[in-house]
Amino acid sequence: MGFGIVGQSLAKLLLSRSVDLFSLYGIKPRIVACLDTGGCAIAPRGLDIQRLLEVKRLKGSVGEYEKTSSRFDPLYVIEKMDAEMLVELTPTDIESGEPGTSNIISAMRSGKHVITVNKGPLALSFPSLMELANYNGVLLRFSGTVGGGTPILEFAKRCLKGDRIISFKGILNGTTNYILSKMEEGMTFDSALNDAKQKGYAEAVPSLDIEGFDAAAKLVIMANFIMGMKVTIKDIHRTGIRSVQVSDVQRAQERGNAIKLLAICDKKKLDVRPIEVSKKDPVCVDGTLNAVTFFSDHSGHQTIIGRGAGGMETGSAILRDLIEIKDTIFERR
Amino acid sequence: MGFGIVGQSLAKLLLSRSVDLFSLYGIKPRIVACLDTGGCAIAPRGLDIQRLLEVKRLKGSVGEYEKTSSRFDPLYVIEKMDAEMLVELTPTDIESGEPGTSNIISAMRSGKHVITVNKGPLALSFPSLMELANYNGVLLRFSGTVGGGTPILEFAKRCLKGDRIISFKGILNGTTNYILSKMEEGMTFDSALNDAKQKGYAEAVPSLDIEGFDAAAKLVIMANFIMGMKVTIKDIHRTGIRSVQVSDVQRAQERGNAIKLLAICDKKKLDVRPIEVSKKDPVCVDGTLNAVTFFSDHSGHQTIIGRGAGGMETGSAILRDLIEIKDTIFERR
Repeated sequence: MGFGIVGQSLAKLLLSRSVDLFSLYGIKPRIVACLDTGGCAIAPRGLDIQRLLEVKRLKGSVGEYEKTSSRFDPLYVIEKMDAEMLVELTPTDIESGEPGTSNIISAMRSGKHVITVNKGPLALSFPSLMELANYNGVLLRFSGTVGGGTPILEFAKRCLKGDRIISFKGILNGTTNYILSKMEEGMTFDSALNDAKQKGYAEAVPSLDIEGFDAAAKLVIMANFIMGMKVTIKDIHRTGIRSVQVSDVQRAQERGNAIKLLAICDKKKLDVRPIEVSKKDPVCVDGTLNAVTFFSDHSGHQTIIGRGAGGMETGSAILRDLIEIKDTIFERR
Repeated sequence: MGFGIVGQSLAKLLLSRSVDLFSLYGIKPRIVACLDTGGCAIAPRGLDIQRLLEVKRLKGSVGEYEKTSSRFDPLYVIEKMDAEMLVELTPTDIESGEPGTSNIISAMRSGKHVITVNKGPLALSFPSLMELANYNGVLLRFSGTVGGGTPILEFAKRCLKGDRIISFKGILNGTTNYILSKMEEGMTFDSALNDAKQKGYAEAVPSLDIEGFDAAAKLVIMANFIMGMKVTIKDIHRTGIRSVQVSDVQRAQERGNAIKLLAICDKKKLDVRPIEVSKKDPVCVDGTLNAVTFFSDHSGHQTIIGRGAGGMETGSAILRDLIEIKDTIFERR
């Protein structure tokens, strides 16, 4: 569901890595249906991925894959297709969670595993979606929702076995970090925002980033997945960066600090707000980078830094989920 | 084998985490023998860990655990004890690799898994030790050798599934990084070294750090484990930091850079040497921190930062290995 930049990147990865995927992981994925806002391509024995990409590039929608254009109801397609997995890539709507939530629920109810990079459904109803997945005996994975290609969730979950993460803090939104970095160089908030829009980092309506919704959604996902909390976006204390003044940024700079939009989970309190951070703190990265520091019981604290976005990077996160789901199914059998 | 700071930290962790280890991972470890340079404590049904720690603290050696002090040959104990695993914690000797290498070989030949934080054996003979482990059907793990408690090896191996690491670079030695950081503040090499000795960061004979042997040993481990190369410390081009002048450091600083002792694996070339790095590069950390940046095919590049040493931190890395070995054995069955 959804065939934008991330979906197309994933399709390209499935092509370019197909030999490796089979030889290293025993996977030979087929795409049996692909839907975008313009239409739908269906082939129970597997779509020709090369042609799918070409049709999308030339005609703007996968609906043109077949000569006879087909009407379709997305939920009907999800439910009825003989597929093992739904890859849900529709855009994030932080208010309704749709169409992602309905897509995910349909897939799980019809026994399909789900990989999503859509933060809306998870931000609004992470605990109930996980329950539904368990109830239906399917897996729900979402590596690409936090950190793009940077495996922040995997790091926390897999790399610190035997230890216990006590708290964490991080820069989870590249757009606001870019704006704050530019303000350090002297730009006003508005011109930094315009600059971010021109470079393609910010949306036309950038409130998702600016108001901290995006960072809050990611914090919800981390709090549930890493800390075992059962929270939604309503449980986050959220302040955006609109009220940050150039003078604030510069005063911080004089003290060897920077103002960063931090997402914090500490003693089960969940916060997203602009905070003054020492430039010597490894979490204090510039530009569109993301960074998270985990504090654990015995192994000290670790920071992981990487780009938080990008089609190919996020595509590679989906591929990781795909491999992990395959491995998990295999273990169960 | 070996009951210094790391060994004692591990023992403390086994005590303090015992409930968790059993409930979360199904592990109830017993220490059936413990050797240090002063003697040996043996109890086939499990030593009293609390008392073991106390004897060590009060009398300086675990040899005093029993009233009748026992003579012992370490290799004989390793071979004959009915144990599933050897935890090898003797000090690193980068020239001979002993006594670690003999200990590890004895354990593997008698069918015991091995966890080590001793870099000597791995730096000198990683490929053959791995072969010997495979041949004997046992596992050899060494998380604590790189990054202390920071899970650098696990990150590379587990978090980027489906992708391929092309190259990496990193600050792998905290002592030299501390000295270089102090030189930035204006200290000479010698006074920075003395400062490091006073703080306990540098050994009395610090050539292992200063000449780059320690970083080179870690690079060998990473090249073998992460990149699948078959190399030993002879294959590393190594330059230490003794020739770095305060004037070099300060000129770099004027350009917004810093001189760092980097370990680099790029196009299968393996280097350890002082290099000028931009202060904006996430890998450019100060003090005793370690940092590694991995460059991969599709998911971009990620940096992981943490303290590279510490008894409790390294103890927690051993615990991770213990859990992983248990999980792997369990899967095999």
